[in-house]
Amino acid sequence: MTGRPPLLALDWGTSSVRAYLLGTDGAIMDTRAEPWGIMHTPGGDFAAAFTMLTGPWRDRFPGLKAIASGMIGSAQGWREAPYCEAPAGAAELAAALVTVETGNGLLYLVPGVRRGGKTPNVMRGEETQILGALSLAPDLEKDSMVILPGTHSKWVSVHESRIMDFTTYMTGELFAVLRDHSILGRPAKAAQREAGASEIDWSAFERGASTVRDSADGLSALLFSTRTLVLAGLMEPAHSLDYLSGLLIGEEFRVARPETQRPLTVIGDPALCTRYQRAAALFGLSAPRLIENPCATGLWRIATMAGLA
Amino acid sequence: MTGRPPLLALDWGTSSVRAYLLGTDGAIMDTRAEPWGIMHTPGGDFAAAFTMLTGPWRDRFPGLKAIASGMIGSAQGWREAPYCEAPAGAAELAAALVTVETGNGLLYLVPGVRRGGKTPNVMRGEETQILGALSLAPDLEKDSMVILPGTHSKWVSVHESRIMDFTTYMTGELFAVLRDHSILGRPAKAAQREAGASEIDWSAFERGASTVRDSADGLSALLFSTRTLVLAGLMEPAHSLDYLSGLLIGEEFRVARPETQRPLTVIGDPALCTRYQRAAALFGLSAPRLIENPCATGLWRIATMAGLA
Repeated sequence: MTGRPPLLALDWGTSSVRAYLLGTDGAIMDTRAEPWGIMHTPGGDFAAAFTMLTGPWRDRFPGLKAIASGMIGSAQGWREAPYCEAPAGAAELAAALVTVETGNGLLYLVPGVRRGGKTPNVMRGEETQILGALSLAPDLEKDSMVILPGTHSKWVSVHESRIMDFTTYMTGELFAVLRDHSILGRPAKAAQREAGASEIDWSAFERGASTVRDSADGLSALLFSTRTLVLAGLMEPAHSLDYLSGLLIGEEFRVARPETQRPLTVIGDPALCTRYQRAAALFGLSAPRLIENPCATGLWRIATMAGLA
Repeated sequence: MTGRPPLLALDWGTSSVRAYLLGTDGAIMDTRAEPWGIMHTPGGDFAAAFTMLTGPWRDRFPGLKAIASGMIGSAQGWREAPYCEAPAGAAELAAALVTVETGNGLLYLVPGVRRGGKTPNVMRGEETQILGALSLAPDLEKDSMVILPGTHSKWVSVHESRIMDFTTYMTGELFAVLRDHSILGRPAKAAQREAGASEIDWSAFERGASTVRDSADGLSALLFSTRTLVLAGLMEPAHSLDYLSGLLIGEEFRVARPETQRPLTVIGDPALCTRYQRAAALFGLSAPRLIENPCATGLWRIATMAGLA
């Protein structure tokens, strides 16, 4: 090796942890993953998990510096890294890193971001993905909107490389609880027991998204149409969950009203992101750019800003 | 007895059945209730349940005529009474009664009401309660809005004694699944385990309703504030479910935008209806009139129109 030593970067969330060995230009040299999220760390022993996960790399590169983002820096994690107030970018996050002694050197923890107001909001882990996405697509840095779909889907407004404001939609969690525990899930479950799991029905998804787009009704009322359309014989029971997904994702677009001139990016699992690209088209928007996993790039950016790499 | 014989009227829903013996003026002479809703009828034998429930009255008044509303007239009930299309009032419902032979004479089943459109909607049982409410408060017949809170909360527009249009909000079911199965329910459940069940905290309820009233965000995003306000130390965990209830009921008022000049009525359990009266005040509306249980009166009205009483 010549030049600076590599950097150890961890994406340590609730359900899993992924470790990256990053080269001097930030490129991924090696990666390891374990299902040791903070709720599932063996024995709750973060130090032991860290040692097992990264030992071979640290043997090879003594004094390796390490940085982590995600729930590992929450009150339930290894040590709490207090939230940065928005607006926040790489400089603010780098200045607010918190350290924890691992027994094998310091681990730097990236703080989450908070914005106040009547309905305050927080993110932890997403801030790092967003900064990674901005590195991967520098034309997004000036002014753009970044979507992070999931259990708690986030729409984040970016200006001059900083997180300015954001909104969280309970899309994924609403979908799951309504599918598994409400009257809306029953027809589809019965149909799926008969037919087995099936591909997404895009026409049902788009019907849901366009119903929200064209209606003045609120979400709580529109959800009920998932049931009544089946009852009225106007929708196949097997398609009703794709319709429900379309309603919930369509609601994000209806409420967020993204401006057509702002570039739109979606970060995450491609299958889920495809739904957002389809919905964007229905709302007259260009397809959001897909960035699958920018976390390592974001950790590199923050570490560089902090002088760790 | 002089004059016409009494009428047997049944409010037969999903979870329970209530039977009324109505005098010649429609007044309740006697009542009986059993937990024999259509999903819980012993042996699924509606005829046996009917015989057991009403036998003593039919012995006393041979040839007693009988009418029922609710899910007993659904496809999962005794016999399906096809929906009347809205607009529908007592005349339309009376003309569409369906009969079933009970083994002890005919039982007349009141149909539900349907309205079409892109998000079609149905009610079954509520139509009878609404007609009862209009009999009990004739000043509502000309033009009013009737709210029936519950699992699937309904807002019904009434004009010239007919059901014109209606919207269903999944308020009660959303509240239950979010309380029992989502991240929003956890802080309150932990707090209640410590402190025991508590009274409603009206300031938390009103905070939720006014947050919806004053926000341009959609429900899916506002729901998340139930969590972030607790995380930020701005709301007691024990109060978070009252806040959630305020959000969901506030959303009904925000979307329905009831016109201040239309009388507003709320039918149902007084404790639940009180929440709607509180929310109405926050939206600058007069307190909705509370009508607790108008079903027997509604069955009498439809039976009279059909010449059964």
